[in-house]
Amino acid sequence: MTTPLDYQEIVEEIFQEIQPSLTKGNVANYIPALAKVDPNQFAMTITLKDGKQFSVGKSQEEFSIQSISKVLAFSLAIDIYSKSLYKRVGVEPSGNAFNSLVQLEYEGGIPRNPFINAGAIVVMDALISHYGGDYSALEKVLTFAREISDNPKIKFDAVVAKSEMEHASRNLSLAHLMKSFGNFDNDVRNVVQTYFKQCAIVMNTENLSRSMLYLAFKGKDPISGKEFLNELQAKRINALMLTCGHYDASGEFAYNVGLPAKSGVGGGIVAIVPNLMSIAVWSPRLNSHGNSLAGTLALQMFTRKSGLSIF
Amino acid sequence: MTTPLDYQEIVEEIFQEIQPSLTKGNVANYIPALAKVDPNQFAMTITLKDGKQFSVGKSQEEFSIQSISKVLAFSLAIDIYSKSLYKRVGVEPSGNAFNSLVQLEYEGGIPRNPFINAGAIVVMDALISHYGGDYSALEKVLTFAREISDNPKIKFDAVVAKSEMEHASRNLSLAHLMKSFGNFDNDVRNVVQTYFKQCAIVMNTENLSRSMLYLAFKGKDPISGKEFLNELQAKRINALMLTCGHYDASGEFAYNVGLPAKSGVGGGIVAIVPNLMSIAVWSPRLNSHGNSLAGTLALQMFTRKSGLSIF
Amino acid sequence: MTTPLDYQEIVEEIFQEIQPSLTKGNVANYIPALAKVDPNQFAMTITLKDGKQFSVGKSQEEFSIQSISKVLAFSLAIDIYSKSLYKRVGVEPSGNAFNSLVQLEYEGGIPRNPFINAGAIVVMDALISHYGGDYSALEKVLTFAREISDNPKIKFDAVVAKSEMEHASRNLSLAHLMKSFGNFDNDVRNVVQTYFKQCAIVMNTENLSRSMLYLAFKGKDPISGKEFLNELQAKRINALMLTCGHYDASGEFAYNVGLPAKSGVGGGIVAIVPNLMSIAVWSPRLNSHGNSLAGTLALQMFTRKSGLSIF
Amino acid sequence: MTTPLDYQEIVEEIFQEIQPSLTKGNVANYIPALAKVDPNQFAMTITLKDGKQFSVGKSQEEFSIQSISKVLAFSLAIDIYSKSLYKRVGVEPSGNAFNSLVQLEYEGGIPRNPFINAGAIVVMDALISHYGGDYSALEKVLTFAREISDNPKIKFDAVVAKSEMEHASRNLSLAHLMKSFGNFDNDVRNVVQTYFKQCAIVMNTENLSRSMLYLAFKGKDPISGKEFLNELQAKRINALMLTCGHYDASGEFAYNVGLPAKSGVGGGIVAIVPNLMSIAVWSPRLNSHGNSLAGTLALQMFTRKSGLSIF
Repeated sequence: MTTPLDYQEIVEEIFQEIQPSLTKGNVANYIPALAKVDPNQFAMTITLKDGKQFSVGKSQEEFSIQSISKVLAFSLAIDIYSKSLYKRVGVEPSGNAFNSLVQLEYEGGIPRNPFINAGAIVVMDALISHYGGDYSALEKVLTFAREISDNPKIKFDAVVAKSEMEHASRNLSLAHLMKSFGNFDNDVRNVVQTYFKQCAIVMNTENLSRSMLYLAFKGKDPISGKEFLNELQAKRINALMLTCGHYDASGEFAYNVGLPAKSGVGGGIVAIVPNLMSIAVWSPRLNSHGNSLAGTLALQMFTRKSGLSIF
Repeated sequence: MTTPLDYQEIVEEIFQEIQPSLTKGNVANYIPALAKVDPNQFAMTITLKDGKQFSVGKSQEEFSIQSISKVLAFSLAIDIYSKSLYKRVGVEPSGNAFNSLVQLEYEGGIPRNPFINAGAIVVMDALISHYGGDYSALEKVLTFAREISDNPKIKFDAVVAKSEMEHASRNLSLAHLMKSFGNFDNDVRNVVQTYFKQCAIVMNTENLSRSMLYLAFKGKDPISGKEFLNELQAKRINALMLTCGHYDASGEFAYNVGLPAKSGVGGGIVAIVPNLMSIAVWSPRLNSHGNSLAGTLALQMFTRKSGLSIF
Repeated sequence: MTTPLDYQEIVEEIFQEIQPSLTKGNVANYIPALAKVDPNQFAMTITLKDGKQFSVGKSQEEFSIQSISKVLAFSLAIDIYSKSLYKRVGVEPSGNAFNSLVQLEYEGGIPRNPFINAGAIVVMDALISHYGGDYSALEKVLTFAREISDNPKIKFDAVVAKSEMEHASRNLSLAHLMKSFGNFDNDVRNVVQTYFKQCAIVMNTENLSRSMLYLAFKGKDPISGKEFLNELQAKRINALMLTCGHYDASGEFAYNVGLPAKSGVGGGIVAIVPNLMSIAVWSPRLNSHGNSLAGTLALQMFTRKSGLSIF
Repeated sequence: MTTPLDYQEIVEEIFQEIQPSLTKGNVANYIPALAKVDPNQFAMTITLKDGKQFSVGKSQEEFSIQSISKVLAFSLAIDIYSKSLYKRVGVEPSGNAFNSLVQLEYEGGIPRNPFINAGAIVVMDALISHYGGDYSALEKVLTFAREISDNPKIKFDAVVAKSEMEHASRNLSLAHLMKSFGNFDNDVRNVVQTYFKQCAIVMNTENLSRSMLYLAFKGKDPISGKEFLNELQAKRINALMLTCGHYDASGEFAYNVGLPAKSGVGGGIVAIVPNLMSIAVWSPRLNSHGNSLAGTLALQMFTRKSGLSIF
């Protein structure tokens, strides 16, 4: 069996081996504020049940978690989901790029899953309807981020959110298309703006890895003891991350890594080993599918070295 | 040869024979202000070179010309088109519904032709850039409508335009999608709003039939003698009407009627017999492709009875 | 008015001006037997009502008429079409490449029109069912070709047909897909093979131009006096050529040339000026849409110089 | 912890609770030989590491395993896959129906994964190339089926295979389309025929559950001790089953059941609990996505009752 001591050795080995890959791929350039980040950085943090952490690289450097925030928003929405939201967004891999409109039109404005942009925007629309106003919904997501990370300082980067809003055409197009099909309740512009603020939440790998312990331990944070989700809900979110967590490269990620995980265009990825640990990696350069190139590789190395996977 | 006298007989025969069809099809219901029109009405007017008109039915009843206005806007834009606009919108039938996003995404935000919604919105965007402001562009279209109809009272219906703006999601989605591909210059909301005002221009079949003489006579109004387009430009717009004038039923219209024509969801259709006449029909109920059901039928009867067609 | 004398001058002017374009574009390479043709050749022939011809270039050089043969087959099938075949193939431009399966799947195995491959294969399937065997159907098409060209020597090139059969995967895929939707009656392989033989019919521009007079004169050959189609049928086939005659560049052809015409990947194009003439051009190099590059250009020059068009 | 004793109780509870669902859904009717099966049957068998089995219902009734055979074929091909086959077929969920051509055309004839029909046909094409002839490839699959089930009597049903070949249009269309893109080596008809024989392999739930132990135990059969795959290969096939095992309902299955599994239109499903067990269910009526309706439900009940899942 792999002992706690080994994890530090493993991440340090990965850190050595990953170096040649840190200059490959490209930083997301459609969000100007993100394009300014030093692209060759790398960080990785493992957090165990008792809070013990194993890190390498710039594990205290903050980055924009972007689409990883969709997991937080969906965790908050999952009660609503089982009651009514499932009619408005599916749980099926899309087989298309994260921002495609084609499938959305063919399927009557119902997004395939909550981790593609259209789906995440519908989730925010539902949270706003539920919590009464975009400010409240955003506060709710931020409060949740602070609770799961056990860090009251977590906030979003207003400059990044503003930068995204200035390049929002594609997401506005998705939202208006859903509205044309009757799958939208609130003002399009406000919902998209609030969604961008959610995406602009900032964490480092230590925060992020700590945050996701609740998904590794059946919905309950093993350190604080707080129960954020029930066992079935946690299982379902893990399943969603496995089938839909990496846009149109989710199958490849499952095939090569074999862990539930969610990536963001800021270069972060968080992965779950059920009943054992949460792992966060970060490296800004992306592969052709919009997932961190070195981050994906590091997680693949990790599962090879540790023998851990859900399969 | 058919003599002028015959035309009145022909339209009266058509008026008799069309009666059973006036209760078939449905009025466009996605624009609430249009849905209020008495649905079983019918009018038809033929205008010859010398201005002589042959009418039946409610030929003085005004209706919203809707997509027929795209012909006016494109006539104004055709100079810009040959210089630069052709890179932003094609001249090819779409093979899809008038408001589809699928093809627009696959083809990088370049609409197939100026008579589908996306293409007409791009034309308005170009007119606004060219004439300096949405008010000027709209004024330009209205002035053109007044000149070709020789009727200074032509205006748009502000209630219909407002009603359309309240149900604008699909068109806003199209416009934002084009903007995301870099195929948009001005503010999305303003362009779409101006486009709706253009679509809300009101005419009766006498106005409409009179208006389009310039397309029947090589770009030059045979009554006023004003040259609105040159011969090549008029030919091209007629070609566009033939291949793209009836959305995804353009082929069927060419096959059954055989005349360049443009329809609108207000129930109007205008058709051209080159070097001879312009014909306007109106009946609010639409067939499954969004074209006037009785209007299409009336034009088919007309070409059968008169033996006229371009083929 | 343009006098007969002018036509020879016009085609000779075109022949001069077209020279620089004869080395542009590429010969169809997916049919090996066609790829062997000397690519820089050009021919053009105009035929008037009385049979008088005006030619330039290699107007006696034979070429494979390929998709132009679809006009012949559909002329033979148009009686069947109005009775039952219209349920199996439409008359609408496709908005897609000539051999696309996408639309065919979305639209339940019903091809958009008889001039895309799927549609032409369905027409052959119907001819075989009607005339009782693939040999009879092929004979019928050949006999028709001989009658309209007034040339009993017209035949198909067995080497080209065999070469096409060896590269038939795409067409076999289309045919099997239609069969899976129930839109196929006979053996897939035999129908496709017979279709290839039809496509391999060989003509020169003098034959081809002569052949299509029946479409310029309301279905009746003005020289032999034979009535091949009635007036409505001839009008409909001309309409189809205008909206669907050049695959996914039909709109552009109508916009720039303004005549009903049909092209083939062998480099031939035949165009109709109703009530006046039939024009055949040939040049093997194709543009990106699969139509003869110099041939398209020559027809555009012709309509500019002559002022002739249907619009 | 769940003890062995509990499994029998659990499957019996499921058997009671599933009864009302046995008359819902429809038997696959596009394969006439399959449509003859008595539709209201049900069976379920769990097999543990030591071979101990827990069954309910008609666990000795044989059925056509259909698409479940794709797991066997891919297990045989996975060595070839890592060397060269990965260029010819992906590992990504398709987001489309199991037999769609649309995506295959857009993606240049490369099927999304080996569990949709096009992908499985490519795998068979590769096996035939590798093992030298369709007979050898088929023998290889059958031998593998006999080894993993530890049952030398396993065979395919020639009547079912023949019935499928008589309704093969869609699969022939897929194969010819891939051939047109150069993604096919052998004769289309023979490959598809051999593929149908593979799909016609017959098992009961006891055989099927026994067979898949090698995937639950890292590639090695825990009873015979034979190593069919290495650990990484077994993990990858499990990942593929999770993301692609249920056509376009794979995400929903992962969300609701949470186990790697593969279904077939014969009504069978096999699921894996890594390191613990293999479960086979069978019930012929299918849901709208082509997966056994009662079988899916039974597995969902099982994970709820047992608390077992990979997440």
